[in-house]
Amino acid sequence: MTDLRNAFYAQSGGVTAVINASACGVIETARRHRDRIGAVFAGRNGILGALAEDLIDTGRESDAAIAALRHTPSGAFGSCRYKLKGLEQNRAEYERLVEVFRAHNIGYFFYNGGGDSADTCHKVSQLSEKLGFPIQSIHIPKTVDNDLPVTDNCPGFGSVAKYIAVSTREASFDVRSMASTSTRVFVIEVMGRHAGWIAAAGGLASDLGGDIPVVILFPEIEFDRDGFLACVRDNVERRQFCTVVVSEGAKGRDGQFLSEQGTRDAFGHAQLGGAAPLVANMIKDALGYKYHWAVADYLQRSARHIASKTDVEQSYAVGQAAVEKALQGKSAIMPTIVRVSDEPYRWEIGEAPLSEVANVEKKMPREFISEDGFGITPACRRYLAPLIQGEDYPPYRDGMPCYATLKNEAVPKKLPPWAQPK
Amino acid sequence: MTDLRNAFYAQSGGVTAVINASACGVIETARRHRDRIGAVFAGRNGILGALAEDLIDTGRESDAAIAALRHTPSGAFGSCRYKLKGLEQNRAEYERLVEVFRAHNIGYFFYNGGGDSADTCHKVSQLSEKLGFPIQSIHIPKTVDNDLPVTDNCPGFGSVAKYIAVSTREASFDVRSMASTSTRVFVIEVMGRHAGWIAAAGGLASDLGGDIPVVILFPEIEFDRDGFLACVRDNVERRQFCTVVVSEGAKGRDGQFLSEQGTRDAFGHAQLGGAAPLVANMIKDALGYKYHWAVADYLQRSARHIASKTDVEQSYAVGQAAVEKALQGKSAIMPTIVRVSDEPYRWEIGEAPLSEVANVEKKMPREFISEDGFGITPACRRYLAPLIQGEDYPPYRDGMPCYATLKNEAVPKKLPPWAQPK
Repeated sequence: MTDLRNAFYAQSGGVTAVINASACGVIETARRHRDRIGAVFAGRNGILGALAEDLIDTGRESDAAIAALRHTPSGAFGSCRYKLKGLEQNRAEYERLVEVFRAHNIGYFFYNGGGDSADTCHKVSQLSEKLGFPIQSIHIPKTVDNDLPVTDNCPGFGSVAKYIAVSTREASFDVRSMASTSTRVFVIEVMGRHAGWIAAAGGLASDLGGDIPVVILFPEIEFDRDGFLACVRDNVERRQFCTVVVSEGAKGRDGQFLSEQGTRDAFGHAQLGGAAPLVANMIKDALGYKYHWAVADYLQRSARHIASKTDVEQSYAVGQAAVEKALQGKSAIMPTIVRVSDEPYRWEIGEAPLSEVANVEKKMPREFISEDGFGITPACRRYLAPLIQGEDYPPYRDGMPCYATLKNEAVPKKLPPWAQPK
Repeated sequence: MTDLRNAFYAQSGGVTAVINASACGVIETARRHRDRIGAVFAGRNGILGALAEDLIDTGRESDAAIAALRHTPSGAFGSCRYKLKGLEQNRAEYERLVEVFRAHNIGYFFYNGGGDSADTCHKVSQLSEKLGFPIQSIHIPKTVDNDLPVTDNCPGFGSVAKYIAVSTREASFDVRSMASTSTRVFVIEVMGRHAGWIAAAGGLASDLGGDIPVVILFPEIEFDRDGFLACVRDNVERRQFCTVVVSEGAKGRDGQFLSEQGTRDAFGHAQLGGAAPLVANMIKDALGYKYHWAVADYLQRSARHIASKTDVEQSYAVGQAAVEKALQGKSAIMPTIVRVSDEPYRWEIGEAPLSEVANVEKKMPREFISEDGFGITPACRRYLAPLIQGEDYPPYRDGMPCYATLKNEAVPKKLPPWAQPK
């Protein structure tokens, strides 16, 4: 053992193609500062690993294995959907965290997630003051939804945007080929519960000249059935075919999601899926066009094979910055991406106080959505285009990508078992 | 004009990520034999272009544009779903074809498609004899379904297999990350109306050691609800999570597809989609597991960004061989892929008479499916593995692949308009 304080790192919420690149940034940077940071312990399955004292000793992983995280999708240590309540409502959980942190000499808390995780991270940062336990708590941004405030964009979004842009373009070429005697309309459903950023990326499927007619249904725009059908019909009549990108978060006049499976996740969010077949059938019924539909679901957020190089670099950079900022003594902050210029695209790392990040959702600004509500504006394209720039292919062996699976060996427990509160 | 006979090339049926690589093989090879083949005219929207005398002059495309077809998905000249009836039932169509071929001095007929197209190609080859018009008719194999006989595999299949193997592995990593508190089962629906080759490729998502528990529903195996649910439960209990690959062609005891949209395509085939949500809900109802589901649909067959290098090479090779065999005086044949060895994988071009190809569907042999009916055997893996080998990335600009859109200029018409029979 050493007197150096150890670090805790965990992944939270829906995983992405590049969240492990942030993990790689954290661990590699910590390893370069062995004189100032002890071990890096990862939470098995996010914050639950801390509560259960189920810590993973990342020190048992080789440098090569940690480097491979940079090109491995999903959460290498397991993630969770679990939001800590406020200190007042559930003091026992916070006292347990402090107990575990103290037992394992943890002084740095790095939490890699979205809005809910920023909130958790913010609460942990208050442990120093409220429970008298010294800890530096830094949030590492991650969300495919791109809905965190302050930061110009969220690590994880650029890769899903590239996947949706490329895949929608490819499928649009397909329907264009088939349109004379068969499919006229292709509908793809994309993620984005409350913000239409991913749907907007579908607009990049068309070139600047509009070679692909793309109709987008955003969560930000109330669904207008008649206007939508008129737009699809107009495209098919003029161009023979049409592509529809529908956000899983698209809502009707009554505020209900176009299609709701009726189940809810642990945060109480509705679990969606099924807007594509609904919209496709609506088109068939009203206009008679033959259609195909796809629901990309996990494929879009795990597609490391077509990750954005920009996104990979930024994901690594926020992980690295989190450790560096911790070493500068900072806490209760989140490293951000700051856009310096559009063309050429230049960015740098900034920071935001967690009080400004937690529980704030950044939706698409209205000026990024075309006047008719079904497309993206040049300003939106200017914003999105740099985020999908560059390819960052994983290595392959025998035709398959070489993704890492870590050993994930547990740190020996020092405390009696703990029962998770129901 | 020249005395050289011209060639007709057309794309038929569902397009693929690599059918244009075959077009590239045809046109580049013809261009290398300008002393023996005149122009290459492409049918706009497949055989319909021939019937309508709507021919595309590929001679107006630069060498660079033709070369770019090699990395461009979908059908650059348009495809169609249109099956010629027999000569006896619809003599007028064949007489029209002869009229158009004669008007444009067409002596070579290259038809790039699946089983239905092989049948059309076979019928055209009989025009020489039956209508006294000399034409060499060669079929170029293409089908994502991998269901053509004689040939070891079908161009188009290797790329969709790679897409499904890679995507299913990525999404499985995702669900594995989430399984402790959220999603336990991921269901992906894949193409393959009557043959389970694409579903089988989902089995490659797991490594040899079985790191990903994959349960496959093949069209070849009658769906057994209880056995399936037991298999999923067993996997989730032992491994925490499970991936299900369901073929759109999976059928129940009554012979009905698990989910049928109720529409039919121009060939009278049922248009499928929706087995994934059905299966996912079945799991939720019976076992209570949280799920996610995806329907890959066109995304899988247009995904040129993750094409198999082996597949691209073979697709080009069958196009090239078609022209070379025509120049050797052959007709009523299809170039095939002949497997010479598994390890190292070696293949060569062979040929099959169209009489043996047309209207024959090659299903998965039972020995490729595991005894319980839910997985692939080592023999199947040995067959599939070489077909996804190698990556063949398209060039990118500003984060998007540079796919070609041709000028597709029409050849001036020489005949009066023709009304397509209803």
